[in-house]
Amino acid sequence: MVILLASVGNTTELLLGLVLILAFAKIVAEIFERLKQPAVVGEILAGVLIGPSVLGLVKPNEIISTLAEIGVIFLLFTVGLETKPQAILKVGGRAFVVAVLGVIFPFIAGYAITFVWDGSKVEAMFVGAALVATSVGITARVLGNLGLLDAPTARIILGAAVIDDVLGLLILSVVSGMSKGTVDYYQVASTAGMSIFFIVIVATAGAALVTWLAPRISRLKIAEPLFSAGLIFCLALSYFATYIGVAAIIGSFLAGMALAEATEKHHDVHKKTGGVMEFLVPFFLVNIGMSLDLSVFKEMSTVWLAIIVTVLAVLTKFVGCGIGSYGLGMRRSMQVGVGMVPRGEVGIVVAQVGLSLGVISPPFFAAVLFMAIATTIIAPPFIKWAYANEEAAHGKIDDDDAGGIVAQPELSNIS
Amino acid sequence: MVILLASVGNTTELLLGLVLILAFAKIVAEIFERLKQPAVVGEILAGVLIGPSVLGLVKPNEIISTLAEIGVIFLLFTVGLETKPQAILKVGGRAFVVAVLGVIFPFIAGYAITFVWDGSKVEAMFVGAALVATSVGITARVLGNLGLLDAPTARIILGAAVIDDVLGLLILSVVSGMSKGTVDYYQVASTAGMSIFFIVIVATAGAALVTWLAPRISRLKIAEPLFSAGLIFCLALSYFATYIGVAAIIGSFLAGMALAEATEKHHDVHKKTGGVMEFLVPFFLVNIGMSLDLSVFKEMSTVWLAIIVTVLAVLTKFVGCGIGSYGLGMRRSMQVGVGMVPRGEVGIVVAQVGLSLGVISPPFFAAVLFMAIATTIIAPPFIKWAYANEEAAHGKIDDDDAGGIVAQPELSNIS
Repeated sequence: MVILLASVGNTTELLLGLVLILAFAKIVAEIFERLKQPAVVGEILAGVLIGPSVLGLVKPNEIISTLAEIGVIFLLFTVGLETKPQAILKVGGRAFVVAVLGVIFPFIAGYAITFVWDGSKVEAMFVGAALVATSVGITARVLGNLGLLDAPTARIILGAAVIDDVLGLLILSVVSGMSKGTVDYYQVASTAGMSIFFIVIVATAGAALVTWLAPRISRLKIAEPLFSAGLIFCLALSYFATYIGVAAIIGSFLAGMALAEATEKHHDVHKKTGGVMEFLVPFFLVNIGMSLDLSVFKEMSTVWLAIIVTVLAVLTKFVGCGIGSYGLGMRRSMQVGVGMVPRGEVGIVVAQVGLSLGVISPPFFAAVLFMAIATTIIAPPFIKWAYANEEAAHGKIDDDDAGGIVAQPELSNIS
Repeated sequence: MVILLASVGNTTELLLGLVLILAFAKIVAEIFERLKQPAVVGEILAGVLIGPSVLGLVKPNEIISTLAEIGVIFLLFTVGLETKPQAILKVGGRAFVVAVLGVIFPFIAGYAITFVWDGSKVEAMFVGAALVATSVGITARVLGNLGLLDAPTARIILGAAVIDDVLGLLILSVVSGMSKGTVDYYQVASTAGMSIFFIVIVATAGAALVTWLAPRISRLKIAEPLFSAGLIFCLALSYFATYIGVAAIIGSFLAGMALAEATEKHHDVHKKTGGVMEFLVPFFLVNIGMSLDLSVFKEMSTVWLAIIVTVLAVLTKFVGCGIGSYGLGMRRSMQVGVGMVPRGEVGIVVAQVGLSLGVISPPFFAAVLFMAIATTIIAPPFIKWAYANEEAAHGKIDDDDAGGIVAQPELSNIS
């Protein structure tokens, strides 16, 4: 059998990895649920546990990170499916203010601490840029688990996260240019133009196009035409998003929003998409946990740096976005503030760009990586807490400007 | 943006590949449906079209073949979910005869033609082994599309395919041993024992265990506990199957069967699994098409060899399995006969093992590869034809021994 095992060795190893990831994710999530802690944190910690830092059961690899990427794409797609465009457009101005303040505060803090810590100017800008990017997937998952994706502040967070990603992209491109000695402002402007054009077009005209197309697609002869077309649309917009330079999840979220109205009555499409999402999201969460490499913290100074960067990342985002929500009342400001805290995979990507350009030194890279994962683990309990009474009061909230939200209990409850 | 595109280059390229595969698969499937041809063939030909042989739009790679593998695992899992164990165990004897005759005829034919064509003895045995293995995924998909997974002969085909896979494994291990000059019969016997033990235990006791566990799992605090547990169970049995040496799909099919009764009432679990399956199966079909490399057919003699091997592969399986179904009447014998014809990815794997051992020469490798894909494309129209009246008469068929089939129209119709 040696020869056979050799030939199927990859499959065997791959399947073992998938089983371990899913099983550990769900077991730790169950423990966290029983401790009244967010399942999301359990699944990330399951990744830390089985990853190289602790047990070393599963090695991070390209297959797992691909499943993770597709997982977060589907996560935002399902969130989009529950969000009608008008609902986001209505809070657009507010989301913009939240995003801008949530970018300025962390950037300055990241820049300052690096400079104080004897980092170079370019390094300081990179750390600043890494502190900017919000990973909306985590918050979306926590709110989804609580059945609160249609809470008034959830839309502000989603809208702000989209804008935040574009701002982060622009900052990163300017900073990357500076690190190479020259910033092509024409390039930066055209990227800004393209991404804004893409988002605005899809957010405004996407739903109309889809609503016109949907009955035509439903008449196709292939089985499940609407579901298949939805998948293609989701992946196509994710592709365009990355082609322009913004995150793939911006594309899938917009695709979901465009489809929200047309598929409102098609529970099958929502359930099937939910199935793909449920299957793949644990890989996204576990993969974040697995990327934690505790061995970089050999020197005590790096540990301190990581802690300080993390504290600054949490406070500046919380304060910046909280101020941005001024006027909504204390509770909602706090909801928006904590909802924007997780940096997740976006912070990791920025740090990796810095590393590949050779402008971030190991201690700062380690600190940023730690910050990205730590904010992701710290935020969910606070999100749960900030929305605690919302859950009970849900449906009774003054929701006059929440018009057009698709509320589907069986979907918004998907774990 | 160059730097950013470089850092996200993999994602961009990956997403483009996924979009192209899904879009082409569904477009060609739609054309085939309109021509009253099986959608399955359309999706495989879409792979030939976008693969290296024709347009070269998508390069086969590890990610796509992994998605393909997970896709066929989920395909057989959903088929298992619709098949209660008793239904298969009842036709066990018949399935065994079909499998054995469907193994003997093709093996002798493959051996003979290679010997006649001046191949070595070991080469002849490898070609024989490659002609043995049935790829049940294709037939299951065609019958699923027709809503005929609960047809009387469908169970015989499924049961025979499981046994066929074990026999194929044993032949391949003997043949591999011979090619290295020594066959470890103790190894072969222990593999046979393990795989039979695994299959019998899961098929007989699996359902009881799952039925006992299901209400306990349903009480867990995590969202969608039953769906998550089902995914883990499916992947775990697929892993065990490959660990023993049989195909992963044997494990996922058995997992599905064990879950069939317990999840009968949980349409959500079926729909969500169906969603994952629908998303991933096109990668399985397209990947088969993409692996066709027409450039090997430079010499006319190879073309002839490929055609002869393919004709023999079709006829011997059809005749062997048809004779095995003697007594069921002409029409059902033909259904079983054509249902066992596709060799698909299993034939490709055997050829690759032969190549890696250096015992199959390029012309024979090309011929076997062509045969694997050609049988997969040739069979579906015949399967559709053999079941043509079944579809209309469905429900009126004398189905006295079909006891315990889970008939769920919305599932058996999933494309």
